[in-house]
Amino acid sequence: MLLLHLSDVDEASWAERFRRALGDYPVVRRGDRFDPADVRYIFVWKPKQEAFDNLGNLKAILSLGAGVDALLQHPGLPDAPIVRFVDEDLTQRMSDYVIAHVTMHHRRFSRFQQDQKARRWTQYYPPAASETTVGILGLGVLGQDAAKKLKGLGFTVRGWSRSAKQLDGVECYSGESRFIDFLNGTDILVNLLPLTPETTGILNYETFLQLRRDGLDGGPVIINAARGRHQKEADIVRALKDGTLGAASLDVFEVEPLPEDSPLWQIETCYITPHIAAISSERTGVEYFSRIIRQHEDGAPLINVVDRTRGY
Amino acid sequence: MLLLHLSDVDEASWAERFRRALGDYPVVRRGDRFDPADVRYIFVWKPKQEAFDNLGNLKAILSLGAGVDALLQHPGLPDAPIVRFVDEDLTQRMSDYVIAHVTMHHRRFSRFQQDQKARRWTQYYPPAASETTVGILGLGVLGQDAAKKLKGLGFTVRGWSRSAKQLDGVECYSGESRFIDFLNGTDILVNLLPLTPETTGILNYETFLQLRRDGLDGGPVIINAARGRHQKEADIVRALKDGTLGAASLDVFEVEPLPEDSPLWQIETCYITPHIAAISSERTGVEYFSRIIRQHEDGAPLINVVDRTRGY
Repeated sequence: MLLLHLSDVDEASWAERFRRALGDYPVVRRGDRFDPADVRYIFVWKPKQEAFDNLGNLKAILSLGAGVDALLQHPGLPDAPIVRFVDEDLTQRMSDYVIAHVTMHHRRFSRFQQDQKARRWTQYYPPAASETTVGILGLGVLGQDAAKKLKGLGFTVRGWSRSAKQLDGVECYSGESRFIDFLNGTDILVNLLPLTPETTGILNYETFLQLRRDGLDGGPVIINAARGRHQKEADIVRALKDGTLGAASLDVFEVEPLPEDSPLWQIETCYITPHIAAISSERTGVEYFSRIIRQHEDGAPLINVVDRTRGY
Repeated sequence: MLLLHLSDVDEASWAERFRRALGDYPVVRRGDRFDPADVRYIFVWKPKQEAFDNLGNLKAILSLGAGVDALLQHPGLPDAPIVRFVDEDLTQRMSDYVIAHVTMHHRRFSRFQQDQKARRWTQYYPPAASETTVGILGLGVLGQDAAKKLKGLGFTVRGWSRSAKQLDGVECYSGESRFIDFLNGTDILVNLLPLTPETTGILNYETFLQLRRDGLDGGPVIINAARGRHQKEADIVRALKDGTLGAASLDVFEVEPLPEDSPLWQIETCYITPHIAAISSERTGVEYFSRIIRQHEDGAPLINVVDRTRGY
């Protein structure tokens, strides 16, 4: 039996799709009558306090989100394996966001928009993509896809991750000891890290100071599409104002929705989107988790299982 | 002998680079003393009235620009073959511009910027790239490169050209009879056509009306990185104001620099850049034309020769 426990999304619609996809396999929602001992899978998004009570035969916790930092803090979380949602559709949408913002900054959008406002015709030729280095924090499924696509566009790409990785055509750095080296050659910093105690607040003023200063005209740029708690917003405000950063694209914030009195709203070189970089669509989410349930019921091992000691 | 005849760029610097690249082969500039009968190649950019006088032994005219529409109007143009500048560097820069603007519009930049100004947190999820169709006008070297890169990012890509083309994964339309069909399925229209009598004014209100209306939220978009005379600016102003177009990115204009009193400057959904999408760099330009001169002197045929009956 699959139990759905979803907040802030249309749970009824997800349930209907799961029933269609799983056929005979029983699908229930929180309010339904069922024996908790029958539940083998629970599909969660922002689970309530009591979400996991009495689920004694749980085989897996299926998480709608790719990031599980909040789920891992749940006080009632049982010991069952957690399967993250990482599919091609979500990956595609995340790369769509990353590419749009990297290329916008590379082509010096802020500069041309200022010129337009002043009705100023000043010819400035942006560098070729190969002359700009994009540094990606996090080389999981999302980071790797963004790296591959940026490489295909001609950018020079480097990446940094906790453990060593090898990626074709991408200069890979790993571990704390190589972090500064990685930053020193980066013009546009893209954050796609999981949120863990080690990565909380990683986008801070000290980090910004280490980015390459003689690369991109206008100064280095940061793009955060991961979690708000990766960034120190007071540091971003300071860095954008004093020129340590040339621009920032932020899709996530320390507090969401971003409070109306945040100074970020008004900074012209700060590009705000309301946590919409990538969402899991119902269609692809149901396809993904239905396949996992069916295959696991047939004896196959689970995929994309969270390593709780790493935190992602 | 190679003669340089360049306006509006640093001719001396080009001459020095050509001398280094060509070694023993003589390189002269307009003001130098030389016998016009010795000139086998002339390298031109915006040539003056008398540029070609007395060049009786010309083997080829080398054009710094990829577009030769202005050169073909030169009253003193001799019958020698014209070689256009189309190299990887120029192609890369043009695709940089195209990708940056396509992805910006696909990710509904105008919408999010308006929300930001109003400090409004309204979650809207842009479609995946595959749900958006980019239609490319012109499938020469530039159009093909842009198509390939957009395809690699996941966009649905179609193209239109005068004569029939075949491109992997791109729906190709050709000729006037297929123009409307091509437009009807296009969300973002990218113009990379050569300027000819047939393509002059092709970006007009009637064209805009044919673009897909139920695709991109906010309405269809045009991007012009070719020539100002491809577009009717009065029609663009009208279409942006009445919603026939959702946005426009324009790098070229009917009159350049764009006059201060043009209404385009002030339209928020019009993204103006001052004819900087792609420039030929001195380094790659000299490499390209030096190679052509050396190979042609060794008996190889010229490449990228303009077909004067087509006009490009």
